[in-house]
This record gives sequence, structure tokens and C-alpha cells, in this order.
Amino acid sequence: MQHIKWENGCLVLLDQTLLPSEKREILCRTYHDVAEAIVKMRIRGAPAIGVVAAYGIVLAAQGYGQGDSNGLIKTLDEAKELLASTRPTAVNLFWALERMEQAWLSNQAQGKEETVRLLEEEAIKIEEEDLAQNIEIGRYGNTLVPPKAAILTHCNAGALATAGYGTALGVIRYAHQDGKEIMVYADETRPVLQGARLTAWELTEEKIPVTLITDNTAGYLMQQGKIDLVIVGADRIAANGDVANKIGTYSLAIMAYHHHIPFYVAAPLSTFDRKLSEGKAIPIEERNPDEVRMVNGVLLAPENIKVYNAAFDVTPAQYITAIITDEGLLKPPYQTAIADAFRKREGRS
Amino acid sequence: MQHIKWENGCLVLLDQTLLPSEKREILCRTYHDVAEAIVKMRIRGAPAIGVVAAYGIVLAAQGYGQGDSNGLIKTLDEAKELLASTRPTAVNLFWALERMEQAWLSNQAQGKEETVRLLEEEAIKIEEEDLAQNIEIGRYGNTLVPPKAAILTHCNAGALATAGYGTALGVIRYAHQDGKEIMVYADETRPVLQGARLTAWELTEEKIPVTLITDNTAGYLMQQGKIDLVIVGADRIAANGDVANKIGTYSLAIMAYHHHIPFYVAAPLSTFDRKLSEGKAIPIEERNPDEVRMVNGVLLAPENIKVYNAAFDVTPAQYITAIITDEGLLKPPYQTAIADAFRKREGRS
Repeated sequence: MQHIKWENGCLVLLDQTLLPSEKREILCRTYHDVAEAIVKMRIRGAPAIGVVAAYGIVLAAQGYGQGDSNGLIKTLDEAKELLASTRPTAVNLFWALERMEQAWLSNQAQGKEETVRLLEEEAIKIEEEDLAQNIEIGRYGNTLVPPKAAILTHCNAGALATAGYGTALGVIRYAHQDGKEIMVYADETRPVLQGARLTAWELTEEKIPVTLITDNTAGYLMQQGKIDLVIVGADRIAANGDVANKIGTYSLAIMAYHHHIPFYVAAPLSTFDRKLSEGKAIPIEERNPDEVRMVNGVLLAPENIKVYNAAFDVTPAQYITAIITDEGLLKPPYQTAIADAFRKREGRS
Repeated sequence: MQHIKWENGCLVLLDQTLLPSEKREILCRTYHDVAEAIVKMRIRGAPAIGVVAAYGIVLAAQGYGQGDSNGLIKTLDEAKELLASTRPTAVNLFWALERMEQAWLSNQAQGKEETVRLLEEEAIKIEEEDLAQNIEIGRYGNTLVPPKAAILTHCNAGALATAGYGTALGVIRYAHQDGKEIMVYADETRPVLQGARLTAWELTEEKIPVTLITDNTAGYLMQQGKIDLVIVGADRIAANGDVANKIGTYSLAIMAYHHHIPFYVAAPLSTFDRKLSEGKAIPIEERNPDEVRMVNGVLLAPENIKVYNAAFDVTPAQYITAIITDEGLLKPPYQTAIADAFRKREGRS
């Protein structure tokens, strides 16, 4: 499933707000277009946001008109600032922008054309690496999946949330391709319904058996012994293993803990923010109250009713059985496991 | 708030499926109309369903044409059977129908007119008693509410779910009228959104401060220490105190338990089913998958996606801090407390 395409110097994105009823692509010609697509959640998912922000920087360089390299750097700085302001929680966004900045800083005074070429190369690399890392996550995660398993997932940590394979759904995809008998329960994931709109669609397209449930139903299924394991993605993971992910993840983790069901988080190393010692420091985005008051533009609650619409929550590391990364499975104590994974990565690069 | 009216031998109901955007009343002239209104959830809430089913029996008697009293009894039996088949979980429905049956059985051979009069009297009594019991629940429940409290509630156990005051919202209403500083967090309660549509509206009308949240947000608020207590209603309570209530209640109870937050259930004695020794025996209604696939007729998920749409779940008694009834507060061990409450009630009647 290719939902991010870099074609003829333009970024073409599948508009995820219209899925599954309509498959319409949008064209981003400028970094402003990319920023708007992220803000409006036409593209979402921590790794995917990182990838498209990187292409946003390429568009900024391409769009730079006449001027010296100082002007170009200024434009790239502005683009970086705008793109970084789109959404606060997923760290992959900042990670990708930092990487792009490293690329242009290492290339100063080489002129616009060379800069565009170099930034394009870096963005493509970020995208390709993400895809490869997702497959590694799938491979490692598959070792945790029994031959027959009912798996609960929340939100969409699938191909649509990444460069194209998925983190949580990457594990599910890998296990399914490995011939395991997988049944997925997909939380619909209010308010934006990424589970109903995206995960249910993505799994249906892949012919992986899936049952859609309301978020209210997850606990009841656990109580009945119908869930073997839970796998979710992540938007940011602190140095101690605390995980910010879609609102409702924390409740699932508590319920999985209570029912002795393994609770796994799948994410590439680019989702870790080692500068933050614990999850409490992760900024949590609050979104428009109308996401809760309305569905598809139809008002469902009293007009102007007060709403608390936090888009993410933080699950303390103690409730996480393992974190599935592209550097292997991390298990408690996470502080050490995370540091080791990064050492391994740095040792290789 | 009078949403059930018995006027000129007709039952007039506020159509709850249209709230809060439209306040339209529907007229039930026959027991078939009443049955349809229950099935389509134009009226819902365990005590409210009991009340309107009772009026449904009056309509059946009124509608009986020529014939002897055997024919009348046959019609009443048919009405009882149809009304009992509308929804399986809330026991108040069966309780009210049994009570109506007792009334007509005790009155055999008195002719149609006298039967109608007697059944009407019994239905009005059921309605009036429910209202009075709700206020008692409010009064007892208020003793559990601190002077300043953030209260989480799920679904709608308010005036709209009862004859007119509410069970869970009855406690909240009473505490608010008592001058307490109450802040209510209302779960939107997917799939039918009774929290967003009804609870948010009911509390707004009463000027009780309310914040609407997605069901996914409840656990996060508990984690942040923002919830002082949880109060929910009930659809059926077994002899051991296990409670069937709207799907999602079980998850809330587990999370409240985990966070050491009191979890209260408010219900009149008519919601208890002492024939069932434990909650596992309570039949759980599964509703139309389209309630999950669609919102207001708009498809949000892949067409024909498999859905598991259980309307209720069962919370084991061990997670319930107290059950607030019209016979006082019941505390563990519930087996004894429930038996005592009924003995008290029977001793007085």
C-alpha cells in the first residue's frame, strides 16, 4: 500500500480523512501544503509524519527562488519551524526534521541545486529506512505471536501510519504472512476513528480477519478471555520506556495488566526520545472539541458543550510487557534495554 | 423534565434518538407502537422501559375490541409477550410486565372497562413510584458525595432513563441541589452516544457543570487524579451484586479499582433480579452492527466489516464500592445486603 509518493518533485498523499469511503490523493507542492496535511490529519501516524515532514523540507528547498545560500538556509529554517509546529506529541516529526537539518548544515555553500538533491536523497533514505525498520519490527514481533492468536489493537499503527508496512500492524502482517491464524479486534478509536476508518480497511484489504469494536468493548472481551495479546504503536517513548500513544492506550494497558494479557508496543528507534527521562514530560496535544461534538460534520452533542479532547495519553513502562523495535525486543528494565538498543545501532552506523 | 406522558389514553414519548438537536414527541396508540419505540431506542434506560411497557399493557387492554374476558386476557398475554421480547438485558421491563400481569390476574372476569381502569392505575403507580424511588436514591447517594467532587458517569442514567429524575444522575442532581460543587465528566458512550446526546444535554439543561469526553479519555483522567468518584446506573443486578450495565462499565470499574477511586452503582430495587445468583447468567443483548459501522447514517468503516456489538457488560460485585438503592446504601457482602433490603421493603408493604 503506497500512500506516500514522491513523484516529479511533488509529494502525493492519500487523504486519510476520506478513507475508507473515498480514495482521493492530494498533491503537496509546497511545505505549507505538507504542514496543512499534517494539521488536518490527512496524513497521520508518528513515522508517516516524520517521512512527509522530510519531504516538506525538500519542497522548501525546491521552492526557494533567487538568492544566496544564507537565504536558502533561512527558508529551510522557516520550513522546519512550521513543520515542527504542526503536531506536538509524535517525536518522529522532530527527529526527521533534525536529520534533514543535519543534511543541509553539512552541505552549506554548495548552492540550491546540490542542496535539493542532497535533501531529496535524505528524505528518500528516511522513507526507505522506515519501511525496512517496520519489516524488522514485524520479524521480531512475530516471535511473540502464538500460532493462533486473537490480537487487540488500538488506533492505526499500520501501513498508513508509516512509510508502508506498519509497526503494530506490521507485526500482525508478518505473523499472518508467516501462516499464523490471526484474528484482529480493532478498537474504533474515538474521536477520529482511525481504527474503524483505517485499521479495519487496511486489514480487510490484506484479507486478515478483523472484527471492529467500540473502545468500550475491549475490556469486556478481555474479561471473557477472548484476547490473547494487545499490540499498539507509539508516538513517543521516553528513556525509561513510558509510552505516549493514542488516547485510550493507557486504559487498555491497565486492563491488559489486570487480566494478565501481554501488552506490546511496536515502534522504531526513531520514536524514542532519550532526552526525556520519563513519560510525564511528553507534551500531550489537545485537539479541537468539535472532533468529539461532531462526527462527519453532524453535531451529536449540545452545541458548545465543554469538551476535554486530549489526543494522546501516557502508559507507564511498568504496564508494558515488551517494546518491539527494529533493534530487537526490549524488555524491562527499559532504561537499560533502550540504552543498549541505541548503543547497538550506533555501533553499526 | 417530563419525557413520558400519559395523556387522553395515549402514551406520548420524547424521541431520544433525535436529541439533542431536535425535541420531537411520538405518539403511541397501541402496544405495538410502544414495542417499536423500545426496540428503536426512542425510549431507553432500564426504569423508563419498565414504565412505558406498563403503559403498553394499558394500551393493549384499551385496544381490545369485542369479546369475552378470555379474549381480553389472551390479548394482554400477547402484548406482554411482544413487549418482553423488545430488549433482553434490563430486568425492569420484565418486572413491570409481571406487575401488570398480577394486576389483571387479580381482576379476572370484571370486564374490559374495569380492567383498563385498574391497569391504568397500576401503570401510573409504577411511574410515580419510580420517580419517588429515584429521589430516595438521590438522597442516599448524596451522602457519598463530598462537598466538591468531580464525578465520572457513563451512558445516561438520568431523567431520560427513568420516570423523570434519574438514578446515577439523580444522585448528581440531588448533590447539586444540595449546594455541592459538582463537576461531571460524561463519557460519550459509543456506539449510541447516550452520554453525548442525552447526559450532556440533561445536565446542561439543569445548569450542572459538565465536560464531555470520549470513552477513551476516562482512564487518562483517573491517572491524572481528576476523578473523585464514578457513578453509573444498572440494567440488571444479580443476587450477588454483579451488575449488568452499558458496555464500557466493566472497563471503568476495573480502572476505578486500579486507581482506588470509589465506584458506585445507583438503581432501584426493581433493577435487581434475585432469581439470578450471579451476573454470568444475565443475557447480554447484541445489537445491529450498523450502530458501530455508522454514525447518523454515515458509513465510517468498511461496508460489511465484521462487528461485535454487545450493548452491555457485567461488572463483578467485587469492583463495586456501594450500590445506591431506594432502600439505602448496600455495601459488601452484597448477597446479604441485597436480601436485607428486600426484606425491609417486604416488611413495609
